[in-house]
Amino acid sequence: MQTNVVKQLNDAMQTVMRTAREQVLAKMGNKLTVAEKTSRRDLVTNVDHSNEDFLISQIRQLDPTAHILAEEGTGDRVTSMAGHVWIVDPIDGTMNFVHQRNHFAMMVGFYVDGEPTLGYIYDVMANKLYAGGPQLGVTLNGEPMKSPADADLADGLFGASAPLLIQDRFNMQAVVAASLGPRIMGSAGIQISQVLAGELIAYLSYLRPWDFAAGRVLAETLGLVVTTLDGSPVDMLSSGAVLIATKRAQRSILAIV
Amino acid sequence: MQTNVVKQLNDAMQTVMRTAREQVLAKMGNKLTVAEKTSRRDLVTNVDHSNEDFLISQIRQLDPTAHILAEEGTGDRVTSMAGHVWIVDPIDGTMNFVHQRNHFAMMVGFYVDGEPTLGYIYDVMANKLYAGGPQLGVTLNGEPMKSPADADLADGLFGASAPLLIQDRFNMQAVVAASLGPRIMGSAGIQISQVLAGELIAYLSYLRPWDFAAGRVLAETLGLVVTTLDGSPVDMLSSGAVLIATKRAQRSILAIV
Repeated sequence: MQTNVVKQLNDAMQTVMRTAREQVLAKMGNKLTVAEKTSRRDLVTNVDHSNEDFLISQIRQLDPTAHILAEEGTGDRVTSMAGHVWIVDPIDGTMNFVHQRNHFAMMVGFYVDGEPTLGYIYDVMANKLYAGGPQLGVTLNGEPMKSPADADLADGLFGASAPLLIQDRFNMQAVVAASLGPRIMGSAGIQISQVLAGELIAYLSYLRPWDFAAGRVLAETLGLVVTTLDGSPVDMLSSGAVLIATKRAQRSILAIV
Repeated sequence: MQTNVVKQLNDAMQTVMRTAREQVLAKMGNKLTVAEKTSRRDLVTNVDHSNEDFLISQIRQLDPTAHILAEEGTGDRVTSMAGHVWIVDPIDGTMNFVHQRNHFAMMVGFYVDGEPTLGYIYDVMANKLYAGGPQLGVTLNGEPMKSPADADLADGLFGASAPLLIQDRFNMQAVVAASLGPRIMGSAGIQISQVLAGELIAYLSYLRPWDFAAGRVLAETLGLVVTTLDGSPVDMLSSGAVLIATKRAQRSILAIV
């Protein structure tokens, strides 16, 4: 897409994200309706649904012919990355949203013929909006972000997934031992934003498309790498183990997993 | 102590903590001097030292004959909780301070003849100051806090210690399995403040006196319990496994560990 068109879309989407945040904050003053999806640890609330509806309606106005893949299923059935594809997670870290009222994110990723184009991660309670893409760079609340230092695994904190760490999947305990220590926040959006900010040198978890679509755009724009555990490109329409890391940390982690 | 004296001390100490925060933020703009204490994961910086010096000097002005136990060793050698004892952690979560510039706390606890009297946990980057004690209640940035709901282990997120979780010490993996999931922040101060705020139903870690002295005052004031793993009262001059939890979660956890 032409850069001026991307820029207009980015401006409009940041306004959409800020409006969505205000609506979510307002709804948090009321009692949440919480339902279990696949287990007692996999929750959805009325706010996930209403925010997904809002984001989809706003994206349809901005980009009427696009395909939209959304976590709670009210978007389109997307089977190809051809053309314009938006990938939406209205509330990432719903467990935190329900039980902490903190540490959750809303995320949107935009791809054009499979190319990462725009991404948004909004840490709602910290009021930190990470936005942008390869043509524009990444901003945090409108201020340009620099790429984080290319620190190695031994020199940084590692964003872990609790189940993978406890079960020692992918040798995650050895990865942690080689790092300065693990951190677990319970939200892919929050932990990926910490990699963007240089607070973590990597994040590794089993992720679904809406968990990493926004983060991939932002991370790659900042010179970070986003791959599967054999170092291959990620498939935006599949779920699996995804590593977001500095270049150096990625090499060290791939040698361990 | 008389309540009006405690109230005056509390007002003065909140001003001290806010001044300390300003100084720490200013020093974060300069390059940190980092040294390893016992290992590459046990750090101390010039800011830990300067902030400890500042806090001790301010406490000495407010309470000249008190004994002060401080993490970095520039206080007194304290062997008894008789009289006035202040326990100071100038930067809790030094690893986060160095590598995240986020998620660290300053903490001060004040005990009179062993009785919890005043406590301060300051989440520096979030600018959240938890302050108070049994005679005054607990405030967050000056606003009175309510006690968190007495939720059980099965209904809340569990604040874990990374080494204890990975090594499965004290059956921590079974505790986690009974909860809604673990969270690991790498700072006792931050995680205890999350228990105060109801974001976690419990926090269990191997702690030193300055890690839990402030948190014990605040937690007990809010109706939470602070014990060893056999349910005994904690010894303020010893290190060991300490559990800070809601009453219900404490019973469930003690039955597992």
